[in-house]
Amino acid sequence: MFKSAEVGHRISKSAYREAVPGLRAALLEAQVDLHEGKRIPVVLLISGQDGAGKGETINVLYEWMDPRFLSTLAFSQPTDEERERPPMWRYWRSLPPKGRIGILAGSWYSDPIRERIEGLISLNQLDARAEQINRFEAMLVNEGAVVLKFWFHLTKEGQAQRLKELESDPKTAWRVTQWNWDRLKTYDKLQEVAGHFLRLTNTAWAPWIVVEGTDDRYRSLTVGQIVLAALKKKIAQTSPVATPVAPIVRVDTDGRNVLSELNLHHALADKPYKTELAQWQGRLAELVRDPRFQGRSLVCAFEGADAAGKGGAIRRIVAALDARQYQVIPVAAPTEEERAQPHLWRFWRHLPRKGRVAIFDRTWYGRVLVERVEGFCSENDWLRAYTEINDFEHEMLAAGVIVVKFWLQISQEEQLKRFKEREQIAFKRFKITEEDWRNRDKWDAYQQAICDMVQRTSTGNAPWTLVEANDKNYARVKILQTLCERMEAALAAAPGAAKKSGTQKPEKNKKNKR
Amino acid sequence: MFKSAEVGHRISKSAYREAVPGLRAALLEAQVDLHEGKRIPVVLLISGQDGAGKGETINVLYEWMDPRFLSTLAFSQPTDEERERPPMWRYWRSLPPKGRIGILAGSWYSDPIRERIEGLISLNQLDARAEQINRFEAMLVNEGAVVLKFWFHLTKEGQAQRLKELESDPKTAWRVTQWNWDRLKTYDKLQEVAGHFLRLTNTAWAPWIVVEGTDDRYRSLTVGQIVLAALKKKIAQTSPVATPVAPIVRVDTDGRNVLSELNLHHALADKPYKTELAQWQGRLAELVRDPRFQGRSLVCAFEGADAAGKGGAIRRIVAALDARQYQVIPVAAPTEEERAQPHLWRFWRHLPRKGRVAIFDRTWYGRVLVERVEGFCSENDWLRAYTEINDFEHEMLAAGVIVVKFWLQISQEEQLKRFKEREQIAFKRFKITEEDWRNRDKWDAYQQAICDMVQRTSTGNAPWTLVEANDKNYARVKILQTLCERMEAALAAAPGAAKKSGTQKPEKNKKNKR
Repeated sequence: MFKSAEVGHRISKSAYREAVPGLRAALLEAQVDLHEGKRIPVVLLISGQDGAGKGETINVLYEWMDPRFLSTLAFSQPTDEERERPPMWRYWRSLPPKGRIGILAGSWYSDPIRERIEGLISLNQLDARAEQINRFEAMLVNEGAVVLKFWFHLTKEGQAQRLKELESDPKTAWRVTQWNWDRLKTYDKLQEVAGHFLRLTNTAWAPWIVVEGTDDRYRSLTVGQIVLAALKKKIAQTSPVATPVAPIVRVDTDGRNVLSELNLHHALADKPYKTELAQWQGRLAELVRDPRFQGRSLVCAFEGADAAGKGGAIRRIVAALDARQYQVIPVAAPTEEERAQPHLWRFWRHLPRKGRVAIFDRTWYGRVLVERVEGFCSENDWLRAYTEINDFEHEMLAAGVIVVKFWLQISQEEQLKRFKEREQIAFKRFKITEEDWRNRDKWDAYQQAICDMVQRTSTGNAPWTLVEANDKNYARVKILQTLCERMEAALAAAPGAAKKSGTQKPEKNKKNKR
Repeated sequence: MFKSAEVGHRISKSAYREAVPGLRAALLEAQVDLHEGKRIPVVLLISGQDGAGKGETINVLYEWMDPRFLSTLAFSQPTDEERERPPMWRYWRSLPPKGRIGILAGSWYSDPIRERIEGLISLNQLDARAEQINRFEAMLVNEGAVVLKFWFHLTKEGQAQRLKELESDPKTAWRVTQWNWDRLKTYDKLQEVAGHFLRLTNTAWAPWIVVEGTDDRYRSLTVGQIVLAALKKKIAQTSPVATPVAPIVRVDTDGRNVLSELNLHHALADKPYKTELAQWQGRLAELVRDPRFQGRSLVCAFEGADAAGKGGAIRRIVAALDARQYQVIPVAAPTEEERAQPHLWRFWRHLPRKGRVAIFDRTWYGRVLVERVEGFCSENDWLRAYTEINDFEHEMLAAGVIVVKFWLQISQEEQLKRFKEREQIAFKRFKITEEDWRNRDKWDAYQQAICDMVQRTSTGNAPWTLVEANDKNYARVKILQTLCERMEAALAAAPGAAKKSGTQKPEKNKKNKR
């Protein structure tokens, strides 16, 4: 794919001078439309051979466009905060918000290419990274972003030539270091690995744009015009374009499903409850202090009908933890900064460091539950969310995060009883809202959404645990026990051993067998 | 101050049971008022002797209150991202937004106390830290926060007793480790250092509340009631209460000031401009690559009238930098998350890591310039801002950050000329807004604000450089030269050698002597 960038493209000074003012005005206009109008985020990757003009192009973009809506994001060595999270975390945290252009000097392509050149990963592993990147970029595009990936190419001779030119001019000599000369030696290897990797990631939704880097004016003008055309096209789009999704949902032909099969009569008397609670809390306290946990982290996801007892269960868990070790993240309406990002961004930002615990009171499943049922997002949005959620959890698992997901199920009668009780007791009144009563009307739609969710996202290392929660004692002990057992199993296994596997049955039967 | 917490306070089970439901309901109600009504941020410090019930109290607060509006913030070893910024950065980034209660397990008190106990800092240094903390907390209170600082106290015997009790119960034995027993040995030293430090930081706006930690029920109820009373009081406040500020502004008795004395006729012809520009850009490129800079960072602050040439000057600076090394931060209207924080928060969040450069296009001086002149904040707000800004810059300087501040001054005639030019040239049109024209009407008020700003904030290591900017060539070279000279001087000095010194004359004469 580099051949088209070895043509010897050149633009004359006069042609350049003639073209720039109009291009510049149009780019500024497009930026205003991006920012004030449709609030489109733009992810602009600048990559390629050294000396092919990456830095110069960024400077030209800053010169032509309004820097108020531009950010340059540089990724060198990951910080320890970044190393303690899944590798993609550092890119998620840096994504440009809607209306802004993020210029990425270095990106999710840098590490796989470097690791392959250094022989740290196999070709198969490289291909797996390509697949992961393709899905990530598809998510960005589905979320409304424009993803522009530039690769600046130079022939080997061209690269040597350019370094010499820079070095011979005292005004630019400082830009050439031994590092640049060393990179010239790895030219062939980089061409080979990058060629392969670019091919695999050259998708319809985020294709590579290879630009010949030799001539400054040609390169600048080409980048400027491609950026402008892409922005104008996107701004002109009247309907959102997203990856097609199969509108396949589960059907209960015989009226039975994972929820209807739960035995909500399970109960635990107060006395054994107290003993078991203390026992499992003690065990949990040991597990989070286990030296092996210091290289891992724990993410607990709590979902359940209103009044199902999520808060009470969470309090029983944190009672066994050191306050310095955990965060409870109550998921409410997204903030302005969160709304300006892909919908999983607000969960990525709360991923815990190693040795830490994050407990989500409601989760990233909101999109396939409340948002689906209440129509807060389009069908396309929630249908593609299953895949995005599985990718999200896969990235956590692959990085050694222990992911434990609970659905707390109560009967309609039990929920009504708890609602009425809450209204009686002054200090619980604030937990009941209009919305709670309204949600009850959609009970069946919610059951359907839950069953679909369990089927589509109960995966190998991140299964759903369905909790029979009519009896709070029983539910709390089952949750603590499950948590301990999942942690024990995870700590016994090697970190990062998570395999991308198919969906499996939720762990609903474990406690029942007691 | 610990005597009142050695009384042997106890609350009976029945009294406790009677008091809790009402307290809980009132706390929930206050939380709703905090969040929905006045949007008050609450900073709640939990500190004190080990075993005095810090973790238990946090759990009780979680049990009584709505966890959706609570966050626990734990501070253990700083991460490398935190170590590469001023020490207070980690606390700034964790401050609870308006409407939320942030419970701090560990705080800005932990390090000074620990460092003093370990003999790492002198008593004088400890006292300086107290002063710094007092000013920081005053800022929080002035910004509308409630700051509640709890210190849980136990006698030495009480502490030993409590550890034994916890250890003897299998349900709680896991909570006692050798670490806890070791801490008992340093009891006396901690009492001595904490006693001194608490006294110095026991301010009217953020007093310490020492609570006896022996009896769980007494401790919980006391904390709950004090929190409730403070929140209710704050919610009932009808007018903002802030530290008194002296409404002293500068007067030009003879009509002369630092701005009127500038020689705006300074100019530089194109030819020497090109040579000098390249020379200083080359020098700057060397300086940011200097090994000594890897342990420092650079913050450039640009202020100036509209059309004074800030953007053009910034582009000449970044042309000498590696795109991976710098961020240009265009300061626009604050986002929702930023509006929910003290006003300096949105600048703290952008402080660069070591070896990096942050260039602010408009700055934290907005409060004493546009916000003052346009009446976007109260007089009290902008008057106290001078002190807060000096503290902010002092914390940067003390951490080795090189702070360089430029004011670009143009004449009214030159500004008008540039406005008209901009309207002519299509690609510059977007830079002119209604607001720009309006601001011109307040020219004199702005000149007054600028002179006050220079007088109050041109401090020892962070002086203002006033730039005669009618001629762009001259201005750009002066800026680059100043930047290089300031960096050279800073790199030659030891990092952190910044002294808190009085205001000094701005460096307006340097370039004039050329």
